[in-house]
Amino acid sequence: MFEAPYLLFLGDAPDGLAAKMAQGIYDWRPEAVAGQIRMEGCNADLGIKDLSIKEAAAAGVKTLVIGVVNRGGVIGENWKSILVEALESGMDIASGLHNLLRDEDDLVKAAQENGRTLHDVRIPSVQYPIASGKKRTGKRCLAVGTDCSVGKMYTTLAMDREMKKRGLKSTFRPTGQTGILIEGNGVPLDAVVADFMAGSVEWLTPDNDPDHWDFIEGQGSLFHASYSGVTMALIHGGQPDALILCHEPTREFMRGLPDYTLPSIEDLREIALKLAQIVNPECKAVAISINTQHMDEPAALKYLDEVEKKMGLPTVDPFRQGAARLVEALV
Amino acid sequence: MFEAPYLLFLGDAPDGLAAKMAQGIYDWRPEAVAGQIRMEGCNADLGIKDLSIKEAAAAGVKTLVIGVVNRGGVIGENWKSILVEALESGMDIASGLHNLLRDEDDLVKAAQENGRTLHDVRIPSVQYPIASGKKRTGKRCLAVGTDCSVGKMYTTLAMDREMKKRGLKSTFRPTGQTGILIEGNGVPLDAVVADFMAGSVEWLTPDNDPDHWDFIEGQGSLFHASYSGVTMALIHGGQPDALILCHEPTREFMRGLPDYTLPSIEDLREIALKLAQIVNPECKAVAISINTQHMDEPAALKYLDEVEKKMGLPTVDPFRQGAARLVEALV
Repeated sequence: MFEAPYLLFLGDAPDGLAAKMAQGIYDWRPEAVAGQIRMEGCNADLGIKDLSIKEAAAAGVKTLVIGVVNRGGVIGENWKSILVEALESGMDIASGLHNLLRDEDDLVKAAQENGRTLHDVRIPSVQYPIASGKKRTGKRCLAVGTDCSVGKMYTTLAMDREMKKRGLKSTFRPTGQTGILIEGNGVPLDAVVADFMAGSVEWLTPDNDPDHWDFIEGQGSLFHASYSGVTMALIHGGQPDALILCHEPTREFMRGLPDYTLPSIEDLREIALKLAQIVNPECKAVAISINTQHMDEPAALKYLDEVEKKMGLPTVDPFRQGAARLVEALV
Repeated sequence: MFEAPYLLFLGDAPDGLAAKMAQGIYDWRPEAVAGQIRMEGCNADLGIKDLSIKEAAAAGVKTLVIGVVNRGGVIGENWKSILVEALESGMDIASGLHNLLRDEDDLVKAAQENGRTLHDVRIPSVQYPIASGKKRTGKRCLAVGTDCSVGKMYTTLAMDREMKKRGLKSTFRPTGQTGILIEGNGVPLDAVVADFMAGSVEWLTPDNDPDHWDFIEGQGSLFHASYSGVTMALIHGGQPDALILCHEPTREFMRGLPDYTLPSIEDLREIALKLAQIVNPECKAVAISINTQHMDEPAALKYLDEVEKKMGLPTVDPFRQGAARLVEALV
């Protein structure tokens, strides 16, 4: 969709949190990042080279990526002169903000005049097909969760990186804007029209080598009343061979739904597997990924051990322990 | 969304099949239909009053409904003079065709000049909310199927009409274009953006009297790889109290998916109920609706009897037998 190397735009971020998109891109794909560009008053710093637009252009930067969110997710008027200069210097711009680059007349004009492209990654840029349900070659692994935001993206990214470290064939397949900004491509699944959801996931994970694994970023949860349809489309479009069950043990209720408590990991395994086996009878739940960020180390390790014994599956927090055991569970 | 009485536009339909949308509207809602309008060469006939635009306007028609499909689902150029005359005579126009009224410049112009509205029912006209998952008052019944196109719309329409015949409180809630054209409102669910699917179903089935039933038109199937996400959103957005299980027993494979055979009605009951109980623990599968159109009467009755015994639920073909026993299963 868009090309590295990236220049990460931190704008006038009031603090590091406002630039967490840039941080995520740099953490997961440092080799794609040529440097950062910051405006006066910016309080975020990735600890990497500061480049002017001129320097970035000279360094061969292909895309300026907006890695900052200000209040309301809008495109700052005070960013414009830098963004226009980037377009004039031969860079494309990528953004995951709610407000779209394509709705800013001055950016559209500068992009047209300079033959550049504005990538709004929240908006599908492809006319996806209706899903065919046909079996594809290659292997696929999907993260499913007891809730939204329990670490599904982190888990699949970590597994993909671990595979590559081992010299194994692997691709991370993003389905949300952060993942898309990291990888430079993907499907913004929550913005796809209902009829084409599963088809967009098929499109994202096409035929591949028999020993190649796609790591598909999960979205929502089968147990989340607002987004379960999106999760369902991932399961049926992705046709996973392997499911990773993701959970956050300290959460008291479903994200954004105070009337709902979380299901058990057993419930998730049972229902996700049953639905996945409709399209791939060989699908297995192979491992469990726990987000223990709200537990101290001894409590976390004790919990992981208990879950592993109860469920009979390798159980790790990839943030604390790395993704090695998750990847080994695939093979 | 749009108002009765309707004038059903049959255009230059080459045969009755091309006008089956008009036939459906008249079959299910004859009281909303003032008459039909046919062009020269039209070979379809609903057997109701032919009205000119002038006569229809004098009879108080509020909406001309395009009830004909020509090849490609486009709006015929030769229809235009009649459609413009309708707009000039104070009628709105409603269409479920793939090609949109709003993309026809001459119709848009005539609508603007006359203060009329063009209703393209395949396209959402509302900014739906994200689903909240909150419990609503009133009762809801959802048709779920082992496959697409097994009679879910027919079943819920027939149950709604039977309820009304008995003086009970009931509303049919359409989620597809045929249902929307019949009812004059609804949600074109397959065209809703992923994040808002469940929210659109909540919006469609709001709080109501404790003894009021919504009959929600089903879409797709949990077992259909292309559309299962849409079905999931209906189950979690609809929060049904009662499920009707729909099945077509002679189908050899899933509609459009030659690699997939149909699940059993038991499989459907098990998984649909488990998913529905996430949002409504009281949900029950109350009855079975079988589409026996491809069986002769003795074979159909024998099959219905067998299923009823095996599943322990009232089992009928509402087309052959009416919806009385389905409605009784609710109470």
